[in-house]
Amino acid sequence: MEKVLIYDTTLRDGSQGENISFSSDEMLSIAKRLDQIGVHYIEGGWPGSNARDARFFELAAREGFVNARITAFGSTRKPFTEAADDRNLQALIDSRAPAVAIVGKSWTLHVEQIMENTREENLAMIRDSITLMKDHGREVIYDAEHFFDGYREDAAYALETVTAAARSGADAVILCDTNGGTLPFDIETVFDQVRRSLAAQDLPVRLGIHAHNDCGLAVANSIAAVRTGATIVQGTINGYGERCGNADLITIIPILNLKMGRASIPDDRLAQLKILSRFVSETANLVPLNSRPFVGRSAFAHKGGLHVNAIMKAPRAYEHIDPARVGNKRRVLMSDLGGKSNVVYKAKELGVELGCNGLDCQRIATEIKTLEDQGYQFDVADGSMKILLQKFTEQFKPLFELQSFRVTVEKNQSQPCTAQATIKIAVDGNDEITAAEGDGPVSALDNALRKALAKFYPGLEAMRLVDFKVRVIDGREGTAARVRVFIESRDHNDIWSTIGVSEDIIEASWHALADSFQYKLAKQQEQTEG
Amino acid sequence: MEKVLIYDTTLRDGSQGENISFSSDEMLSIAKRLDQIGVHYIEGGWPGSNARDARFFELAAREGFVNARITAFGSTRKPFTEAADDRNLQALIDSRAPAVAIVGKSWTLHVEQIMENTREENLAMIRDSITLMKDHGREVIYDAEHFFDGYREDAAYALETVTAAARSGADAVILCDTNGGTLPFDIETVFDQVRRSLAAQDLPVRLGIHAHNDCGLAVANSIAAVRTGATIVQGTINGYGERCGNADLITIIPILNLKMGRASIPDDRLAQLKILSRFVSETANLVPLNSRPFVGRSAFAHKGGLHVNAIMKAPRAYEHIDPARVGNKRRVLMSDLGGKSNVVYKAKELGVELGCNGLDCQRIATEIKTLEDQGYQFDVADGSMKILLQKFTEQFKPLFELQSFRVTVEKNQSQPCTAQATIKIAVDGNDEITAAEGDGPVSALDNALRKALAKFYPGLEAMRLVDFKVRVIDGREGTAARVRVFIESRDHNDIWSTIGVSEDIIEASWHALADSFQYKLAKQQEQTEG
Repeated sequence: MEKVLIYDTTLRDGSQGENISFSSDEMLSIAKRLDQIGVHYIEGGWPGSNARDARFFELAAREGFVNARITAFGSTRKPFTEAADDRNLQALIDSRAPAVAIVGKSWTLHVEQIMENTREENLAMIRDSITLMKDHGREVIYDAEHFFDGYREDAAYALETVTAAARSGADAVILCDTNGGTLPFDIETVFDQVRRSLAAQDLPVRLGIHAHNDCGLAVANSIAAVRTGATIVQGTINGYGERCGNADLITIIPILNLKMGRASIPDDRLAQLKILSRFVSETANLVPLNSRPFVGRSAFAHKGGLHVNAIMKAPRAYEHIDPARVGNKRRVLMSDLGGKSNVVYKAKELGVELGCNGLDCQRIATEIKTLEDQGYQFDVADGSMKILLQKFTEQFKPLFELQSFRVTVEKNQSQPCTAQATIKIAVDGNDEITAAEGDGPVSALDNALRKALAKFYPGLEAMRLVDFKVRVIDGREGTAARVRVFIESRDHNDIWSTIGVSEDIIEASWHALADSFQYKLAKQQEQTEG
Repeated sequence: MEKVLIYDTTLRDGSQGENISFSSDEMLSIAKRLDQIGVHYIEGGWPGSNARDARFFELAAREGFVNARITAFGSTRKPFTEAADDRNLQALIDSRAPAVAIVGKSWTLHVEQIMENTREENLAMIRDSITLMKDHGREVIYDAEHFFDGYREDAAYALETVTAAARSGADAVILCDTNGGTLPFDIETVFDQVRRSLAAQDLPVRLGIHAHNDCGLAVANSIAAVRTGATIVQGTINGYGERCGNADLITIIPILNLKMGRASIPDDRLAQLKILSRFVSETANLVPLNSRPFVGRSAFAHKGGLHVNAIMKAPRAYEHIDPARVGNKRRVLMSDLGGKSNVVYKAKELGVELGCNGLDCQRIATEIKTLEDQGYQFDVADGSMKILLQKFTEQFKPLFELQSFRVTVEKNQSQPCTAQATIKIAVDGNDEITAAEGDGPVSALDNALRKALAKFYPGLEAMRLVDFKVRVIDGREGTAARVRVFIESRDHNDIWSTIGVSEDIIEASWHALADSFQYKLAKQQEQTEG
């Protein structure tokens, strides 16, 4: 079976997504990663529409791309003009991109009502624009916009448009579900009819699919098209794109290679998918989706006790693929539905010697469950979990002890608040009292604790608190409700998370903070001793 | 064609998602909303596994559900025991839920390798458990776990398990793609074969589908099953669930009703889908996904220019359905027209006379946009929105003014924290200074403000703070991150919500509190005057 070519449009259609915009340098760094992983086409933007995209093509022309063809995007010429005079088409030529994507209309609604054009002139626009690009020696990908909507309304005309494109020498014709409203069954039917029709006219052009996710079906529609003859899939990394996004290549690629037996990028590059996904979300400054298929942080996370037990015997019992294939890994979460086997597995993972028989493990599991009923959630707080397991097994060595703290927040009329914390801790019998300010009470407490500990332990500068979350466990008690505070911390080579629960938000924050510093200090001490 | 029954498992399988946990009260409030919208089954949890789920069934038994059958979930009896002695099955009976879901094994890997059971005993477990439930008069939904994986490995045995379930009187058999690794084409093929096989044995049991999203195909797999004969769809609101989540009912329902012509919930309830999606994400304290199909904030967002122009001529040019059908609305991004008309619309809704010309409305829209960029979210805080509009139009009458407050939280060793607040306010030129304690700093501040205001305004006892939520807007700054505090308050006949944003959580809480009391006092005054 023929290879499926991967056509990435993260830089063009992906950047139509709300809150997404890349600089031309960022575009280049994404393009390089896409090339590395073995993508076949990289659509770099619309050089006729803005300076940033034009600049990207300048930068790209100087780079050597190994696998990918850089592709410039633009629409057919304007009605009743000459293609050679069209500034937008000229910009495509000037971009020096070896491939160009020409988008044209398939739907009579757009041709007649929106553009107020004629059907015949629309066909001429398609023909002329493609001919011009072929005359300039470009590979031409023709994007048939709104093809499926157009086909539903006037199948004959929609077919005429792609026939015109194929006859004019387009190397590929992409059927686009621009509004994202088509179901996979209809994608299959229409694809099959178009493929047959073009073959019957002796126009065996390469066919492709461009799907949007407005019905949550962009991946399904893409693979349905592949099954019915498409050999190009257009999509974006992480499915970024306008409205509900485009088809997510990060999901489609492993489905093609691992589940459908269709070659796309080389198999040995699949393990880079997770990093690529992460790189693009970081560049776009969007929070990575934990639940993203294949590459998300939760994609191979297991919660239930029974599940964990089963996975130890046979991973495929609860994993549809080996997570390492796509660069991901298994995670075991602690949860109120878990049991003894979770505790044993987790202790091993965290390097805590339980040294307990079945009965003790059961007792620990029960105590964890009680805490979780109170609002603790250890599946997201490995740091606190480790400390808790050490406490249960009497292996916990406190590296500092709280004597007292006092946090004060003051506000005068409409002036901003000020926050101060005073803290007294003891380390090996030596007391230290100090104070600090902060952006709010928790920040002040964090700063004061850090300052007090610095006296005894060097090296805390490398530790940073990178995430802070507050969840009111049951808001119905109003301001007296219980809150859960979650803190994520990191140093040069590690990342850990801790948790605290209390009716008092400062106390909950204190517990999470104290665990975080305790975890870091214990780690430092182990390294020194080891 | 037969109606498709919607089986919601947000409360059970959905809460297996990382970072998701509901209190039993929250479970009940979600269940009520699900019932309202016309869902047919609400799986409330696993009463045999934990106290919280058991409590939910107690609460649910006291409620009147109009449309939905409350369903309790549990597994088949343990191997080589009596069903009547099984504590887990007993818990299902004790739950008093009118319907029960019994999950059993279909895959020989699980039966033999994981459970170390025999094939025959597994069949007996299925038979006995279902028979017991039928003897107790329950409707029985049989969940065939790992059905598709099992069928791939040993089709004959997988079929035997569901045949056993159907013969024992199960009212419905659900084929589960537990690991989420199956493609829609295979779902269709297997579904068709199972349906034929059961029909040939004269066992015309109702069939259903339970899909997971590990390949981004849960929605596609669900509708593929419906197309091949499934008339129950199990899924969760927003697709919450373990790993990559379950099938998203918020997407599936409008596809069934609007695109496949299959009745599920009543058509006139579709417009509640957006609010339901939002309610569940707020209750789970998860950020709503802007790109969520149908209901996301971006689902019908159009960037300015050609698209907007086209939409003014014919909305279907770029919208696959009318957004109002699912309770959503079109958004035009970066368009001054959009912002301004929103403000006018909202002011009218809140009863604020803007009395401003176009230019002023534009200025207000811009200022609101600036605040929203800083983290305010006025769509969930009508109380604060009203006060803000009054401030902008110089109609705001402050009914108290803050002179100063000081909040102190103290902790000594492992004693619980204590929190005190001192506050000084002015009402009509009269100062009042007072102090109060509380469960945490915000509670202390709330109590102190209430005490100080009581001196000037009677009737505040009727006002209660019923919900309090904290969201860290960008956690990356650690403990110095900005937080948004949301407060919901009510009195005998009204409910209102207010919001505050600051890097200091106490200051953010203060703004939300102050708005809430201001809103209440203004309302009281209007009533007295009116």
